[in-house]
Parts: sequence; structure tokens; C-alpha cells
Amino acid sequence: MDISRRHVLAGAAAIATAPLFNGAARAEAPATNKQVAGIYRYKVGSFECTSINDGARSFPMPDTFVRNVPKEKAREAAAAAYMPDGMVTVPFNPQLINTGSKLVLIDTGNGIANQGPTKGAVGNTLQNLVASGVDPKSVDIVLLSHLHPDHINGIRAADGSMAFPNAEIMAPAVDWNFWTNAENAAKADSNPMMKNYFAVVKKAFAGIESKITRYDWDKEVVPGIHSIGTPGHTPGHTSFWLTSGNSKILIQSDVTNIPEFFLINPDWHVMYDAEPDLAAKTRHKFLDMAAAEKATVVGFHFQFPSIGHVEKNGTGYRLIPAAWNPTI
Amino acid sequence: MDISRRHVLAGAAAIATAPLFNGAARAEAPATNKQVAGIYRYKVGSFECTSINDGARSFPMPDTFVRNVPKEKAREAAAAAYMPDGMVTVPFNPQLINTGSKLVLIDTGNGIANQGPTKGAVGNTLQNLVASGVDPKSVDIVLLSHLHPDHINGIRAADGSMAFPNAEIMAPAVDWNFWTNAENAAKADSNPMMKNYFAVVKKAFAGIESKITRYDWDKEVVPGIHSIGTPGHTPGHTSFWLTSGNSKILIQSDVTNIPEFFLINPDWHVMYDAEPDLAAKTRHKFLDMAAAEKATVVGFHFQFPSIGHVEKNGTGYRLIPAAWNPTI
Repeated sequence: MDISRRHVLAGAAAIATAPLFNGAARAEAPATNKQVAGIYRYKVGSFECTSINDGARSFPMPDTFVRNVPKEKAREAAAAAYMPDGMVTVPFNPQLINTGSKLVLIDTGNGIANQGPTKGAVGNTLQNLVASGVDPKSVDIVLLSHLHPDHINGIRAADGSMAFPNAEIMAPAVDWNFWTNAENAAKADSNPMMKNYFAVVKKAFAGIESKITRYDWDKEVVPGIHSIGTPGHTPGHTSFWLTSGNSKILIQSDVTNIPEFFLINPDWHVMYDAEPDLAAKTRHKFLDMAAAEKATVVGFHFQFPSIGHVEKNGTGYRLIPAAWNPTI
Repeated sequence: MDISRRHVLAGAAAIATAPLFNGAARAEAPATNKQVAGIYRYKVGSFECTSINDGARSFPMPDTFVRNVPKEKAREAAAAAYMPDGMVTVPFNPQLINTGSKLVLIDTGNGIANQGPTKGAVGNTLQNLVASGVDPKSVDIVLLSHLHPDHINGIRAADGSMAFPNAEIMAPAVDWNFWTNAENAAKADSNPMMKNYFAVVKKAFAGIESKITRYDWDKEVVPGIHSIGTPGHTPGHTSFWLTSGNSKILIQSDVTNIPEFFLINPDWHVMYDAEPDLAAKTRHKFLDMAAAEKATVVGFHFQFPSIGHVEKNGTGYRLIPAAWNPTI
């Protein structure tokens, strides 16, 4: 606050502009230099859900970020979404589901140990959970959609201990078998991205391999949570129907990576897809269903709070983000 | 937590599904039944800004909500935005600007005394400000874009006292003169909506009339904040350029009411516009400028966090909401 000006204003010539109360001089309000916690609550029937922003990573777009279209088209899609010039921005959003009897965390984010040079950009799931009032010790189940690093690394705290020490960890059986298979790992040795994926799985689950619950598709894996096989992104990639009373929503996981690219253009192949053609086929099938059911869809890589509706739009789809609800 | 099932899982037959640690039985995690505070921070140059969600009001759509199109078309626009059937949802978003020397609140929301039957739906500005770490006593300036109830009622706390007791209150001179003119009020006596507007202005400013700063258009009303005349919605309706260093953004105030209706269709007349033809002309002029400048635009009635970019789209415009940034 400019105290000298305030003194002038308090003079007789400035009645119209005088503050309502000539309070004592106050200090300037400090900047916080900090974003608020990325958390948002919504109900599905009697389930109380929390969308948790693990963060967002902006990085120079790799030449093959979209494998099957010219880079210029990908850059246009990034520019249309107002991403930083030459960059692509990918957000990450685990979901916490309180079913009333179980506290279930679907996916875990990049892990607090992987926050990287831009601290606070990613790896915020644990601290945002705590900010939302949840003790990590109270999480009953960690339900993994697939075993990519941005979904599994958050099972570990900063010191490498289990971030959710009382939680049963559930992984899709197909993905588990694929990523823990030594022959598959050996075959991936010449592909740096795949090699890293195998190494991350090995490290994340080191010492707890035998304790991981392997779940199948088309099962009620937790009361109110049904697994849907949506392979292609990874061999065992899984989505979920969340059902409570007459309400249900779809958790799409990584059926699409960022919707600004891959929901609008379902036939674009993101570099992370293990089996691109199968992934694209899965995308069409899943998004057609979401559109036909007029389902609310939650996407791990949608913009936080990562909830919306999907509609068909020509040969692709559009996402209509849900309005922020001030109550639940 | 289903303890009996947990006991079974801990048995020898269920090693693969056993929790990592067979902790003591825990209480079920309680539901919060509460949304998080609607606050979001962003920087404009060195200014730290906070978008504050006052809430959102859902109400049965009046027959003349859009005055100059058949109700069926308005209902289609609401359905396209996934609003509740037959209803329209209008959010409200004041902005707090910390310029480094002044803490400026642009508009104040519906007021905590006007939360109405659905507590928490609107009137949350004061409590969300506090949740963001701001002492209402530290607000230096309340800058009003115009004198409609949802912008001015928040100047009062629940008990009718000043919510920001040390703040200078600034109102556009043209609006001030219009809404405090007894002749104008008398003429509006037969129009319930307008009659209410005059009554609300009278009540909100009762006893402090002489202390309100009246500001003009095309002025730097606060260092870094320039007033832009955008009349039509009200006679003195004002928007702002916020400028710091090489950065600037537009605060559009109510140039459009909800963008799902009136940014997409700039020639639609919302029932609240005092001079609908002038408001539509202003809309085109303002949004053309926003699009040409590729400006970041903040809208009081945009979906929280209420920040986006505007593009021309045929005879109308489209809004591209800004991505949630986990850092600032």
C-alpha cells in the first residue's frame, strides 16, 4: 500500500475517493507464489469422489508425439489448445472414490520423488490427497488402470516407502503379466521408452510383487467398480464403470491421452500406445459407447477437474467439460 | 471397511489379495459432503490474481431468458451445455488482483446474506477469499464493473456491515449516476426486475453514498488496471485491461452472460441487458478485439476458473477454457 498517497487521500480535498475507514497503515498483501491444491469433489449416487490433480507436464513436443500424422498437424492441435509454443502439455488426474465402505484411489500419479526440476508441476497426488483431508493410511485400495509410470510411481512416498501403507494394490492381470515378464523386457531392450517402462515397473513393485492383487476384466473388482477391458494403450489397459444407485460414470483412464489431440482425432496414434491400431479401435468403441450412453466421463489426461461428456463429431468426438459445481 | 471380508482376505488362501500390511481395523473414511473452496491463482506479469467462485445459481429458465429467440432454441443451448433439464445455470466469479502495492477485488458476488435456500450455491466470495488466505480487512480497493446485485451485494457481510472495511469502493460514474437517479427509479417502477435493481443499489450503498469513488472510462483507475466502456448490459457497464510488464489480460465482466448462450450467439439478448441492441453491438466489438489480440479473457459468468481465449466462429465466437495450471 502506498501510504503517502493514502495520507493525501485522507485530506479534505479527496472525500469522494477516501477509504470507507481511514484504518492504520497496512502492510502490502504478500503474494503467495503458490497454486491452490488441485482437488474437486463430485458425487456418483452415494459415492463421494475427488478428482485429484497430480500436476501437468509441459515438454518440447517430440517429433513422433503423434506417430502417424505430420508434426505440423500436431503443432496446430497444440496451438489450437493454447499450449506453449512448440510444447505439449499433459495433465494427470487420479480419482479418489469413497464408496462408503472403501476408500479407493484409482491410479497414483507420477510420484512425489519424480517432481523433477519444476517442483510442483507433477507428483502432487499425495500432498493434494492430504490437502483434501484424507490420511494416506486410510486408503483401502489402490486400483491401477495400467502399469505406466505416471499411474504407478505414486504408490511410493518420497523415501521409497509405501505411500498408502494399508492399501491393497490391484493391477490388471494382463498388464501385470506383460510388464513383469522377463522375455518381454528383454525384447524391449532396444527401445528406450519401453525399456524405461519395464524398469519403472520393476522398481515400483520391488519387494511387494507377491502382494499385488491381479484383477480381470468384466468383473466387479471393488463393490460398485467394474473393470472394462480397453487394451491397446497397454496390453492390459483398463477402464471402469463406477455405479452407485441409479448413477454411473465412466473412468476412461488412458483410452485417449490429451483429448485436445486424441479425442478430437481418435485415429491419431500417441507415441505411448503399445499397440496403436488396437488402441485406436478401442478408442472408437469406448467413445461410441460413452456418447451413446451420454455418460459422464473422467479422463486421466483431461484438463483438471478432468470430467466431461463425450459427443460424436464427424469422424471424431468432442469433449464438453463439466461445469464446476460449488456444492456437491 | 468390511472387516469380516478383510479377515477372510488375511487367511492363507488369499495371499495374492492380502493388504500390504494387515493393519488394525480402521473406521470407514467419512464423506465430507462439502465442495472445496472455489479459488484458482494465475499470474499476469508480476500481478498475482485469484479467480474466486462466488457460486452458481441453477433456476428454471424464464420464458424470456433470451428475449429475442424462441425458448426452444434457448433450451437446446442449455441441453448442449449439459445444464439440468429445463434449467439454466449461471456461475459468478469475482477476481482478486494483487498488484504488489494494492489488493483489488473486482466485483463482489451475491453476498453472503443472499445465499438463499441452497446454502453454498452462491454468496461464497467472502469465505473463499478467507480460504485463499486473504484477510478481508487487507483489501484496498473494491472495483465494481457495474451495479447489478450479483456484483455489488458482496460488499456487505452477513450482518450488513462492510465486508471489506478498509477498502475504497469504486463504481463506474455512468452506472452510479444512472442507478442512483430518483427519476430513473420512478420510471422503472412498473418493471419488477428493474425495480429490484434500483432497490438493491439503494440498500447496498445506504449510508456510504458519499464515500463511493466514481471512475470514468479509458482511465487507469488503479495502477495497472484500465477501464473500458462496454455499455449496454447496464448504461455504465465496464470491462478492464489488466497490464503488468509485457503481460495483459481482459476482464470482460458481463459483456456476455453465460458463454454457452451469449458468446456462441452474440446477437442473443439476455433478459438482464438494459439496452439489448447496444449490448449486442458492444459484444461484437469487444469480442472481435479479444479475438484479434488473442487475449486471455476472464468472464464473470464463465465456468470457474472463468479464464479462456475467444475466437471468431462464423457469425459468433467460441471460448477455449484455459488449462488448469498446477503451478503459477
